[in-house]
Amino acid sequence: MKKLYGIGTGPGDKELLTLKAVKTIKEASVIFAPNNKGKNIALDTAEDYLHNKKVVLIDFPMGKVEKEDYIKAAEIIYNEIPEGECGAFLTIGDPMVYSTFIYIVEELENIKIDVEIVSGIPSFVASAARTKTPLTVKGDTFILCDEFKEELLNYADSICILKTLKNKENILNTFENNDFKYNYIKRCTWNEEKVLSERKDIIKDSDYISLILGRKTSK
Amino acid sequence: MKKLYGIGTGPGDKELLTLKAVKTIKEASVIFAPNNKGKNIALDTAEDYLHNKKVVLIDFPMGKVEKEDYIKAAEIIYNEIPEGECGAFLTIGDPMVYSTFIYIVEELENIKIDVEIVSGIPSFVASAARTKTPLTVKGDTFILCDEFKEELLNYADSICILKTLKNKENILNTFENNDFKYNYIKRCTWNEEKVLSERKDIIKDSDYISLILGRKTSK
Repeated sequence: MKKLYGIGTGPGDKELLTLKAVKTIKEASVIFAPNNKGKNIALDTAEDYLHNKKVVLIDFPMGKVEKEDYIKAAEIIYNEIPEGECGAFLTIGDPMVYSTFIYIVEELENIKIDVEIVSGIPSFVASAARTKTPLTVKGDTFILCDEFKEELLNYADSICILKTLKNKENILNTFENNDFKYNYIKRCTWNEEKVLSERKDIIKDSDYISLILGRKTSK
Repeated sequence: MKKLYGIGTGPGDKELLTLKAVKTIKEASVIFAPNNKGKNIALDTAEDYLHNKKVVLIDFPMGKVEKEDYIKAAEIIYNEIPEGECGAFLTIGDPMVYSTFIYIVEELENIKIDVEIVSGIPSFVASAARTKTPLTVKGDTFILCDEFKEELLNYADSICILKTLKNKENILNTFENNDFKYNYIKRCTWNEEKVLSERKDIIKDSDYISLILGRKTSK
């Protein structure tokens, strides 16, 4: 049987790789990553362990990706892994959090590739550390989303919103009306990392790889 | 100045330590951990790097812990770290997720100890990997809590509930009525790890170090 490890490489800091990620990447016969047509953070994070490794970049169409695209990706992976050996699919953050890899798992299992997930540090966890914002203390609820709804603040003690590009101003207004303090963290743990807490700076910024982390001020 | 690293050791698997956790533990002059009066998972996970290290266990009273207890803990930490050196406080999972460490951070900063957080893999992230349950795909909301409320299911695509000891039956009923599939994961990544998906097995079990991870079946 062929085996594929879905490996979370964490937020981007090479030191936030887990020992298991390093070991598994070293052991893999072939490395896969989505073809980002530019900077590839997952590959960059793991670069120290990729010498002389075969790296296969998998193309996904721009815009809406269809089931057939995932089937095709699974087939490429199947064909590239030699019988009885294993491959490693690298994904930024954690494979179970807003990743392309999730969609491929089912297709891989359908064609009898054994899949094991190696967790990585998600960006929202790294951002909480960076800003010393608790995600939860006893009795708390934490919410993670990429589409903000005001009602969520009725339940959240801390909340993290990814991909806030379009409606940052609305999010900040709602936070302020509901007594949530906030930080905007872009490219967490990268050299280019920036933490913004001033409303005007946050609204001005337009980095896709960013998130807003809010916490009830009564907390 | 003295510095303390708050280090997440992850769910318990030694291989899920990050490279940064290992490096920071090795460099620390003194290691701190809460005194659990028994098995100490954070220390066990890091044991390979603790040879000849001074380890200070910090007592917290049973039941309700008061602000003075955290002030006292911060003072112990201050006194144990030699001037200009650094210490490491080990905490299972991630320091910003349901940890005692969160309460100490403020007290440490009040007495001018520099604090840096080193993220760890939280148990809910490891459990998602173990059961191949997506926490979020595009458009999804994920909720983490330790006190379950039925209304949360109106907003969650995936939900993780910690410390479910008392009301597992109620949680499972609510999940079933709302078309959530679920797994109960105890001691994730430990040798004693168990994943239960049968209602009767879950209700029978009474392990404190466990969680329930649910996901909408339409997903």
